[in-house]
Amino acid sequence: MKFPRYKRDYPFSYALGATLSYELLKTKPELIRRAFLRPNIKHGDDLAKIIAEYRQRHIDIIESDKPFNVLGAKENCLFIAEFNKPTTELDYKASAPHIVLVNPSDAGNLGTIMRTAVAFNYQNIAIIAPAVDAYDPKTIRASMGAIFHLNIQLFPSFDDYLKLCIKNNSSSERSLFSFMLNQKAITLPQVAPKDTNFALIFGNEAAGLPTDFATKTQPVFIPQSKNVDSLNLSVAVSLALYHFAQKISPEL
Amino acid sequence: MKFPRYKRDYPFSYALGATLSYELLKTKPELIRRAFLRPNIKHGDDLAKIIAEYRQRHIDIIESDKPFNVLGAKENCLFIAEFNKPTTELDYKASAPHIVLVNPSDAGNLGTIMRTAVAFNYQNIAIIAPAVDAYDPKTIRASMGAIFHLNIQLFPSFDDYLKLCIKNNSSSERSLFSFMLNQKAITLPQVAPKDTNFALIFGNEAAGLPTDFATKTQPVFIPQSKNVDSLNLSVAVSLALYHFAQKISPEL
Repeated sequence: MKFPRYKRDYPFSYALGATLSYELLKTKPELIRRAFLRPNIKHGDDLAKIIAEYRQRHIDIIESDKPFNVLGAKENCLFIAEFNKPTTELDYKASAPHIVLVNPSDAGNLGTIMRTAVAFNYQNIAIIAPAVDAYDPKTIRASMGAIFHLNIQLFPSFDDYLKLCIKNNSSSERSLFSFMLNQKAITLPQVAPKDTNFALIFGNEAAGLPTDFATKTQPVFIPQSKNVDSLNLSVAVSLALYHFAQKISPEL
Repeated sequence: MKFPRYKRDYPFSYALGATLSYELLKTKPELIRRAFLRPNIKHGDDLAKIIAEYRQRHIDIIESDKPFNVLGAKENCLFIAEFNKPTTELDYKASAPHIVLVNPSDAGNLGTIMRTAVAFNYQNIAIIAPAVDAYDPKTIRASMGAIFHLNIQLFPSFDDYLKLCIKNNSSSERSLFSFMLNQKAITLPQVAPKDTNFALIFGNEAAGLPTDFATKTQPVFIPQSKNVDSLNLSVAVSLALYHFAQKISPEL
């Protein structure tokens, strides 16, 4: 069996592991193309159940070590699902808050952000290129399956994102909050959106956001000790998502 | 030059990269043994400055590719500092809050937790064995140097930690908050410590905390959607550190 290395421009990607493949089957079964199983292994109850459910849907399960080796799967990864990348777009209604990631570069961070987004009931993530591949198997793995619950849309630039916001909902202007190490910014504990029609905007892990975001949007600063340069990106996003979720639905 | 692979039981470890080595020099210069520089490279201003400051302190700088290869340093890593692991212990005074990590297993998570701890002015992390190595070069790297600002103490068991708390401050009992997926727990937005004499306790990435923590401590639950199994450990810790920091010093 020929099995090429994963590439970003392929229309398909991989869910590595039984848990992730099961989450895919439960949320987006229509995307699945086929699956792979490690040969000559004992099937525990969980794995047997997943295999049975994949078979029930008439999905081919190919026994071969090759995909596991080519995709660099860990030894305890026994099952892989190959699926078509979905084409999703953001929900532009005023009721749907957005997360905007400008040039995120780390697959682990991006996946962790997806996981936290779903945990706090955010459903829309805009990604501004250049950026790490949202459907890289590493991103999918770090998302723990949260990626299958999200609308993700890639934009060539931040202005392209704004244009689509206006085009798709011209009746109501979205409030824009940019997270920056700007001491003149409003601090996170003080900030509150007037409704759910907002976007939380974050820059690249190393470079942060371009300085002009401090004037074209509302800058927000997460107060922190001078003994650190900054917070980890997925940590900063998580704090913001939690704070804003509390403000819009404190019963959560 | 012989250069062995890093091992956990060595009394020394490595700061990979110029920025991290500079942070080490600024915070714990007394720990440094020697340094390594990639041979035959152009020195930018930052690197030249760090080399000058290391030389000023009469620290040997050895030009060799070997440590970079053996330690698996990235190509853009040009400088490595070798340093003695410090022996630190927690500050047991009632004024010092503690973070307690029970069996953390991921170096990246542990480093990120250290970074967030320093950002929110926590100085004490208890680690309950078995656990990932706090001085693994990967942990140090993920901490972005925060590890050099912390008191870190390893305990064979949670009871050993409690015993030392009592032994070192018998006049004042520490409040214990355990983060668990326990629906009967108090929720994070509702919880508040009565003073700084508290410990925030977190379990292993996959297994969480043993169930008996729900009765022997105050369980706390971070409200989250049913569409995720849990939050990433470093995200959960960050949310807790931020919330408790707000409660004890809202001006931060």
